[in-house]
Amino acid sequence: MRAEIITIGDELLIGQVVDTNSAWMAERLNEAGIELYQITSVHDDRAHILKALDEAFSRADIVLTTGGLGPTKDDITKHVMCEYFGTTLVEDSRVREHIHELYKERPDVLNRLTATQWLVPESATILPNRVGSAPIMVFERCLGVQEFRSLGEFKIHNSKFLIAMPGVPYEMKIAMMEQVMPYLQLKTEKGKRKGEIIHRTMMLYGIAESTLALQIEAWENALPQSMHLAYLPKDGIIRLRLSSYGEATQEEIEQQIANLKPLIADYLIATEDLPLETLLGNQLKARHQTIATAESCTGGRLAAALNAQSGASAYYMGSVVAYDNRIKEQVLGVKHSTLGKYGAVSEQTVREMAEGVRALMNTDYAIATSGIAGPTGGTPEKPVGTVWIAWATPDGTVAERFQFGVAREREQITQRAVTAALVTAFRLMGNGRP
Amino acid sequence: MRAEIITIGDELLIGQVVDTNSAWMAERLNEAGIELYQITSVHDDRAHILKALDEAFSRADIVLTTGGLGPTKDDITKHVMCEYFGTTLVEDSRVREHIHELYKERPDVLNRLTATQWLVPESATILPNRVGSAPIMVFERCLGVQEFRSLGEFKIHNSKFLIAMPGVPYEMKIAMMEQVMPYLQLKTEKGKRKGEIIHRTMMLYGIAESTLALQIEAWENALPQSMHLAYLPKDGIIRLRLSSYGEATQEEIEQQIANLKPLIADYLIATEDLPLETLLGNQLKARHQTIATAESCTGGRLAAALNAQSGASAYYMGSVVAYDNRIKEQVLGVKHSTLGKYGAVSEQTVREMAEGVRALMNTDYAIATSGIAGPTGGTPEKPVGTVWIAWATPDGTVAERFQFGVAREREQITQRAVTAALVTAFRLMGNGRP
Repeated sequence: MRAEIITIGDELLIGQVVDTNSAWMAERLNEAGIELYQITSVHDDRAHILKALDEAFSRADIVLTTGGLGPTKDDITKHVMCEYFGTTLVEDSRVREHIHELYKERPDVLNRLTATQWLVPESATILPNRVGSAPIMVFERCLGVQEFRSLGEFKIHNSKFLIAMPGVPYEMKIAMMEQVMPYLQLKTEKGKRKGEIIHRTMMLYGIAESTLALQIEAWENALPQSMHLAYLPKDGIIRLRLSSYGEATQEEIEQQIANLKPLIADYLIATEDLPLETLLGNQLKARHQTIATAESCTGGRLAAALNAQSGASAYYMGSVVAYDNRIKEQVLGVKHSTLGKYGAVSEQTVREMAEGVRALMNTDYAIATSGIAGPTGGTPEKPVGTVWIAWATPDGTVAERFQFGVAREREQITQRAVTAALVTAFRLMGNGRP
Repeated sequence: MRAEIITIGDELLIGQVVDTNSAWMAERLNEAGIELYQITSVHDDRAHILKALDEAFSRADIVLTTGGLGPTKDDITKHVMCEYFGTTLVEDSRVREHIHELYKERPDVLNRLTATQWLVPESATILPNRVGSAPIMVFERCLGVQEFRSLGEFKIHNSKFLIAMPGVPYEMKIAMMEQVMPYLQLKTEKGKRKGEIIHRTMMLYGIAESTLALQIEAWENALPQSMHLAYLPKDGIIRLRLSSYGEATQEEIEQQIANLKPLIADYLIATEDLPLETLLGNQLKARHQTIATAESCTGGRLAAALNAQSGASAYYMGSVVAYDNRIKEQVLGVKHSTLGKYGAVSEQTVREMAEGVRALMNTDYAIATSGIAGPTGGTPEKPVGTVWIAWATPDGTVAERFQFGVAREREQITQRAVTAALVTAFRLMGNGRP
């Protein structure tokens, strides 16, 4: 069973919107054992959409589309689908009732344009969209016969199908979880591969990609044909992913991972693909310990990472984003003389920031960052990309200077600093030293 | 002149990585008057890449690829390009020297795998990659003749071309800005459309998409054929974009915008597509005023937004992320009795937070947020999605209760809160009331 995604919308092709939907959908499909072959982004244009549908059906069994289902004039997906599947729009009373319920407290939205949302293609199966007005539409397409009819006429194994979803990410996600994935699991039961799609990811920190590749070269060359290794460097972390598309067993994969581990032990952070903040959060929860942050150059990103998951309030107390030196002194208690003598980007300052916020928020751990994120503010001694990070722990405080590169962008430098801050905090908890 | 983007990498198709490159590249192409027709994401697979190249060249004049240029075994793009353009790899001494310079302080990276990076396709023009080891490769493809030769042999108007870039976002961005865009501008001078591609975007807040569409329906229906209107709702903001692909003049577009403005005056935030934090930051800079934040449910995201641009330290003092109630009391000075009587998510608390951080950081403005981001923590009186926001200003403090919807995800709710916080702060500066 092979799937493709078509994302529809001019906004994607003029760069106004980043397509985050596809990656999220790709993950869900993979988990369900459905291979995603290609992602294609096309314009809100009739001919373009029709051609993309034809091409996708020539390669895949399932085509998922997002976008173009809004009530305004620029949204044409529903009409193009009607043309492609040779059907017309009819009123759907369940969808009408649902939309009335959805907007019962906002009568201005129950207008003439919104009313077009309960017109649905006659031959499509309609799945409910609990949180929005655009219904999810499923079309089945018969193989080998040049005509399209309604769902019930064909046996499943004779048809390919298309599912059209809204492009608003949270509507798409709820539709996928509650409607589309259960539907696909039901429909693909027969056509499934013998084995599962298996991905196993190791997270590594502190080694260059090519150095790592040489270090594990013999192991990689001895991998069986059924397994594929990928290197994914990002923000200072390398994700090493071993994949099998239905040809290797879970045990065979695990054996290879067991052989790999001793070769990468010095750099291994985790044997699963999890956000660093989740790894750290799980550790803190298990130990009933707490953490706080004091941020200068990372400016709230460390805090945002640490509380990204529900339940973070159990271990995450808060942060002082001390952008201004006065705040470093008054709120965090950094000594005026320290700032004067060593400057804001220094070991002394960052240590006092970490210890200050740890005392202020009465936590077990604290992390502090101070650096020059650029593009301005660099000096010969402290060029752009210089970041000091300190970790205050129950066993004392450690600090480290990083140089994240003068060529990098502001966002890249702060992201590297967040990574370094979280990795070292995680390691400190593991064995008491960075 | 029409372009397509092909992003190469299994990680995109299993959802491990979100393709942020394409949107960024799309923006640059549009700015240069080059229309982007399609974005396609394919596997690290020889046959798949070859087919995607053929299809893209059947539609477009310029094909840009990213990804698959690393030194490890899973990266095959360079080899597939050699096959497609009928050429072989040769050593490039300039690239070798550049890589030696790049890694002069990290001799372990100058290994056998890295050495494959200075092997480049013989028929390709090599553009330097200042910050990485993967060279940028330009291939020209002759039209109508079934053979491919080196760059100099063909006149520009007879050829299509491909540019292969690394997938690491910051390497790709620097390559695009410093090498690829100047190269494209030079090459496309002759083939350019007569008119420019023009996009004009209005940002609106506080109106539903369908209500807006009805409000401007007569205006929209009277638009000339050469102009296209799109509605882009995201995080509570609707971007209304009027586009022309080379057929309307700047004056014609401006006239339409002038006609539109009175119809949307109540909801209009800006007449250009800028991040809210940039709008607010520019306002503060112009007035020589400062701002601080106190965050509970937004947990650092408001701070991160406010300091996302270089120079933010001129007006942004800092933030207290007070996740724990104790921090709200001790650091922000929220009264114990207030928290006890009204709870953390209440008008009283959020007002005291805003006034507390304004006093603590001695700023002109302060914003405070407190809410229930979910998925847990909701009650019948304060369901998930309830957020209180307060704005402390030189003229007093205002507060507002928002309900961002029980069906939304944690990330969506906090993002809506950030939007609401910034929009109202921006409006308060404009006319002294929300």
